[in-house]
Amino acid sequence: MVSHTQLTSAMQRAITLARRGPADDVNPQVGCVIIDDQGATVAEGFHRGSGSDHAEVNALKNLDPALNPAGLTAAITLEPCNHTGTTPPCAKTLHTAGIGTIVYGQPDVGTHSSGGATELFARGHRIIAGIESSDTAQLISDWHARTGQTRSGVIAKWAQSLDGRLAASDGTSQWITSSAARRHVHVQRAPADVIVTTTATVAADNPSLTARDTDGQLLVPPQDQPLPVIFGTGDVTQEATIHRHPALAHHGLTQTPQFSGANLASDLARLAEFTGPAPRIFVEAGPTFITALLQQQLADELLIYTAPILLGGTHHAVGDLGVSTLLEAHSYTFGGVHRLDTDLLTTLRKDH
Amino acid sequence: MVSHTQLTSAMQRAITLARRGPADDVNPQVGCVIIDDQGATVAEGFHRGSGSDHAEVNALKNLDPALNPAGLTAAITLEPCNHTGTTPPCAKTLHTAGIGTIVYGQPDVGTHSSGGATELFARGHRIIAGIESSDTAQLISDWHARTGQTRSGVIAKWAQSLDGRLAASDGTSQWITSSAARRHVHVQRAPADVIVTTTATVAADNPSLTARDTDGQLLVPPQDQPLPVIFGTGDVTQEATIHRHPALAHHGLTQTPQFSGANLASDLARLAEFTGPAPRIFVEAGPTFITALLQQQLADELLIYTAPILLGGTHHAVGDLGVSTLLEAHSYTFGGVHRLDTDLLTTLRKDH
Ligand SMILES: NC(=O)c1ccc[n+]([C@@H]2O[C@H](COP(=O)([O-])OP(=O)(O)OC[C@H]3O[C@@H](n4cnc5c(N)ncnc54)[C@H](OP(=O)(O)O)[C@@H]3O)[C@@H](O)[C@H]2O)c1
Ligand SMILES: NC(=O)c1ccc[n+]([C@@H]2O[C@H](COP(=O)([O-])OP(=O)(O)OC[C@H]3O[C@@H](n4cnc5c(N)ncnc54)[C@H](OP(=O)(O)O)[C@@H]3O)[C@@H](O)[C@H]2O)c1
Repeated sequence: MVSHTQLTSAMQRAITLARRGPADDVNPQVGCVIIDDQGATVAEGFHRGSGSDHAEVNALKNLDPALNPAGLTAAITLEPCNHTGTTPPCAKTLHTAGIGTIVYGQPDVGTHSSGGATELFARGHRIIAGIESSDTAQLISDWHARTGQTRSGVIAKWAQSLDGRLAASDGTSQWITSSAARRHVHVQRAPADVIVTTTATVAADNPSLTARDTDGQLLVPPQDQPLPVIFGTGDVTQEATIHRHPALAHHGLTQTPQFSGANLASDLARLAEFTGPAPRIFVEAGPTFITALLQQQLADELLIYTAPILLGGTHHAVGDLGVSTLLEAHSYTFGGVHRLDTDLLTTLRKDH
Repeated sequence: MVSHTQLTSAMQRAITLARRGPADDVNPQVGCVIIDDQGATVAEGFHRGSGSDHAEVNALKNLDPALNPAGLTAAITLEPCNHTGTTPPCAKTLHTAGIGTIVYGQPDVGTHSSGGATELFARGHRIIAGIESSDTAQLISDWHARTGQTRSGVIAKWAQSLDGRLAASDGTSQWITSSAARRHVHVQRAPADVIVTTTATVAADNPSLTARDTDGQLLVPPQDQPLPVIFGTGDVTQEATIHRHPALAHHGLTQTPQFSGANLASDLARLAEFTGPAPRIFVEAGPTFITALLQQQLADELLIYTAPILLGGTHHAVGDLGVSTLLEAHSYTFGGVHRLDTDLLTTLRKDH
């Protein structure tokens, strides 16, 4: 197993390579380093600008075909694209090449290019997102500014039954969705800057809110873990696991920051005080908070994990949104639909 | 445009061809006739048994490649398979060949092979199901008996928002889903033997419950239309459109049959009185009836059309199912997930 140190240095090398590409192209600067299970570099590549190979494809061309790809890790500064343009989708190319683990720094947020990592995840690749997240963010910030894209925004996730319930009538809800869906949530945490939860969810579930692997190890090192923040006015016990979140120390905090949420929009805006401008905010909360967020149309992206079960009853994932007639429905665009084991992941984006 | 008479005679010819294949193979007897837009036969094929070409593939091999495939119609006794076995999925082969219209007699109900027509529909082909449904059913009844498969059962469909609502708080619900989703529902009606609705839905929507094309023309001739049946004790006005359903006259009825539904399972079983044993029953009803059906676990297949909108509020697609703890959740298996324009169609099958 490759260590965090090895992943971090592979990603730093990928960043260096990325900078060799043109800084003012329509495409971003992207670098890719492929390492073996000892952490040794076996191939490198970068993107030389629009029309030429994407970084992953470039690196794969430099790879010795005699190596067993399942044991290799590709560290890429940007999530592999899922888009057929002048070149086929990199997600597909990496899948065909059989590279076992894909590690990336920044999520691809392009309308047509995003979703590559979930595609690879759904096909059984190991995925780690958010490695060296500040340096890789830096690398594409100019490009994001130029193209008007942004990795920031509020992403809300929830797990539900097909009829939109998240618990049975006795309140039991663990686990509605499969372990694959839960692993995918962990992968989504790391590229976020902040992870928002609530007093009620902390009291009910005592979550640790780290991006972890199935064996409990951190997926990304503490400096790349999202900062946890609690919304709500209630007291949170000192014993709560969230207070031992490794990102707190990295931010020089001894306590999890807490906001009342009374003014949701402005409290969410204040999260930038901890992270720098335009953070990526991942929300993991229960139906009361999710409903408030949706009602105020503050979520830019929704990740809905749906299990093929029906529960009926009163534990609705989404409560009253104040929609009185069909024309007022909150409408979204399908970003993607993926099967994760027995579940379905639906990604929705806000219509702008 | 090809007429019903031309489609019917193409299907009868396909049935004749199908019978040339082995009657005791692990695969069913299947025939395929390809006609042009004047109804003239341009290619024929049938399945010669396991390991050899499926009927569609056989017919395509006999097709003059100079013909424009978009103007052609393939009439197949059985829904094109969606399964990669010793041969690639026929749905894919027909798509690649570019055949504009696919007409079939019987739905493929195999766990791994079903869904081909929806795949083709989602890719923009025109689909007509249920042509010559009794004769094509006859053709594969032995095979169904041998393999333990059955085309019969109860299929419930509903249209909902992503959070499981089917109307806004003022009751507006037309149309939650896209015209593509509504067209797909019409395609699903024809291969059913019976279409069940309720007193309440007739009163609210006055549906005609025929399998129709976008231009209002019947998709299949009266003898292939499903028989409409109303469940509920309330009075249904003589003016209701449902009483003019063309299948009624075909069954020698002047009135739509009505059952109380007080004992749902036995009333559903009594539908065989109209159709012969083991009918395929398509349910189009509101949340009260659907919930009763689901609560009693009487639905074998669910077709859930989901629009990328959130509605919130109290108009739930599914009400109380009497599930008190997560272990009692009604569990299903994903049969398939398809994008229909802006919506998602999720097909679920009962876990047996
Ligand atoms: N299925 C899933 O994906 C999922 C995910 C997370 C949690 N859950 C479950 O959800 C349950 C908890 O849900 P819940 O609905 O009771 O609580 P919740 O939605 O997690 O949190 C509600 C609390 O959020 C705080 N809050 C802050 N700003 C708010 C605002 N603008 N509007 C509304 N609330 C605001 C309030 O705390 P104060 O009262 O302290 O002010 C409020 O009581 C738990 O059982 C947990 O297991 C499920
Ligand atoms: N979104 C969709 O896909 C969809 C589809 C169809 C309809 N709808 C909408 O649904 C609404 C109607 O829904 P609804 O819930 O009021 O009515 P419903 O579910 O369509 O019908 C309920 C009626 O079914 C009869 N019934 C017979 N057996 C029953 C049983 N075992 N359990 C329960 N009811 C049984 C009863 O009629 P009696 O009272 O006469 O005995 C009962 O009142 C309409 O607005 C319609 O537009 C939506």
